Amino acid sequence: MISIVSTTNRINSNSLKVATKCQEILFAKGIESELFSLENLPADFIFSCSYGVKTDEYETLTRKYIENPKKFVFVIPEYNGSFPGVLKAFVDSLDFLKLSGKKAALIGLSSGHAGGLRALDHFTEILHHLKIEVYSDKPKLSGIEKLIDDTQLIDDKSIERLKKMLGNFIEF
Amino acid sequence: MISIVSTTNRINSNSLKVATKCQEILFAKGIESELFSLENLPADFIFSCSYGVKTDEYETLTRKYIENPKKFVFVIPEYNGSFPGVLKAFVDSLDFLKLSGKKAALIGLSSGHAGGLRALDHFTEILHHLKIEVYSDKPKLSGIEKLIDDTQLIDDKSIERLKKMLGNFIEF
Amino acid sequence: MISIVSTTNRINSNSLKVATKCQEILFAKGIESELFSLENLPADFIFSCSYGVKTDEYETLTRKYIENPKKFVFVIPEYNGSFPGVLKAFVDSLDFLKLSGKKAALIGLSSGHAGGLRALDHFTEILHHLKIEVYSDKPKLSGIEKLIDDTQLIDDKSIERLKKMLGNFIEF
Amino acid sequence: MISIVSTTNRINSNSLKVATKCQEILFAKGIESELFSLENLPADFIFSCSYGVKTDEYETLTRKYIENPKKFVFVIPEYNGSFPGVLKAFVDSLDFLKLSGKKAALIGLSSGHAGGLRALDHFTEILHHLKIEVYSDKPKLSGIEKLIDDTQLIDDKSIERLKKMLGNFIEF
Repeated sequence: MISIVSTTNRINSNSLKVATKCQEILFAKGIESELFSLENLPADFIFSCSYGVKTDEYETLTRKYIENPKKFVFVIPEYNGSFPGVLKAFVDSLDFLKLSGKKAALIGLSSGHAGGLRALDHFTEILHHLKIEVYSDKPKLSGIEKLIDDTQLIDDKSIERLKKMLGNFIEF
Repeated sequence: MISIVSTTNRINSNSLKVATKCQEILFAKGIESELFSLENLPADFIFSCSYGVKTDEYETLTRKYIENPKKFVFVIPEYNGSFPGVLKAFVDSLDFLKLSGKKAALIGLSSGHAGGLRALDHFTEILHHLKIEVYSDKPKLSGIEKLIDDTQLIDDKSIERLKKMLGNFIEF
Repeated sequence: MISIVSTTNRINSNSLKVATKCQEILFAKGIESELFSLENLPADFIFSCSYGVKTDEYETLTRKYIENPKKFVFVIPEYNGSFPGVLKAFVDSLDFLKLSGKKAALIGLSSGHAGGLRALDHFTEILHHLKIEVYSDKPKLSGIEKLIDDTQLIDDKSIERLKKMLGNFIEF
Repeated sequence: MISIVSTTNRINSNSLKVATKCQEILFAKGIESELFSLENLPADFIFSCSYGVKTDEYETLTRKYIENPKKFVFVIPEYNGSFPGVLKAFVDSLDFLKLSGKKAALIGLSSGHAGGLRALDHFTEILHHLKIEVYSDKPKLSGIEKLIDDTQLIDDKSIERLKKMLGNFIEF
């Protein structure tokens, strides 16, 4: 079971489209996955579910999408030169002791030319700090607006790139 | 006018104690400052005041503490190997075009031994991306629990360190 | 007096072409500069001129290009996902106490799409460690092979980008 | 077969003492290893063996210590806020196509308090760029002078830390 996380709370995000494509690719390879979009976090979670305090509903959510899965695919858009703040706020709300030893793949996207390179670097360091293994091959989709349409990722080269990485990540 | 930002929303945080000391130090040097703690953000700001949408109250707040000041002091605790997610979420809610050319000093704190080094590195890269100049001298207060009491920063060496940096930052 | 450093020892490097263009741009603005290419370092400097030991010739070289100037322009190509090793080896051979308070502008170049973003991030952190101020605006020339010919930088947009940054850096 | 690399060319380095201890620990666990110190690189390798040109002797050296092993332990001291330049210069002299898929453990050391944290971050990003997997647990030995004597690493806590990591790395 792999958990795919779309790491922004922006509505109708490009990240969610890429995450959905990842789920399709994994499904075609016979791998079950869950997809979690950070737009489904409680609106006030930074204040209501952080620093040791959590609602039961929040516990259920984090158990399903974070604590139970052994592997993650994080789809990370570049916001202001790094990952979305909401992603790190979400990490800050988790029980880090339950994360050690899991494995993660990272996919970056950006409007600009670097494909979220720095967002991936920063988040890799955070995951390593939490003792989560990070797969070295991190696709970077730059100029993302040209790779998607209203509903999905349509660029063939990008889709092949994701297929290759996800196929290898299954074995990681 | 310098804006001092305590970059966590944790209640009674060490960061706020350090930020308060910075305000005292600046006051003693004849420099006026405002202190803003991220605990005073609207609880749902990530969902209600991001990606181009803002309430009037939020506009007033960001104008006072972020858009009007020319200089910032960011007090940044290390959470999970980087800055608090709430800080980046706050940055993501701002109008980045209004930030260019401002100047920032960074102070790190951590329970561990590195004093928030990586949090400062990550945030420096974000500020540079926003074309905010970052002063090179960034005090790192490691083992922060031993440097504070219930209400304030009490460690003399740390206070001297902050005095030296802030004195130079005024001229930066 | 500004020192422009081409930070690779590769012969006939793209970096040297970009560095030469920077010197022309500064000259047109009435600013004198020296250009130093790391290809002119002694071939065995890592072993003969590091860790406190230096030849007289090396002292003369580092005094002229590093210790005397107050400002630097570093032209940095991406090698293996970061700056060239020879650049950091050169930094390791310097007397860091003589560097504090200087100011640097950084220009990145790469064959790939990120324009040396990570090389610039890494080197910024090293310069900040040495208490050298780093200008926030760091041009990134990606796809460098298409921007140069056999002898010089020819891409108009890139040249305008450098002119804008260098014009502002003079005032930094 | 694991290759342990002491990543400085400084004579009688602390890194070499830590690397030697790693070899002892692996030996006690029944794991064969080779130890390579960068002080044994040709003094002019940056100029004579980089950018596609190599001597036969250099080919033999890199085949033995880098291309043949499947796993590496890099012992990395902090110099000027990052890894030693000679390490990156060594990486720049390698054929990166022969590195993909290998696995690396990183150990940092520093005189200061951060234990080479940033050196490890920077080098992790370079290894990931080369598609080398990096183990998330990276021991950081700060205040290294107090942990060693004239000939070896003597601090019990540090030795236990290395034993734990290396024991797990064997299974990585």
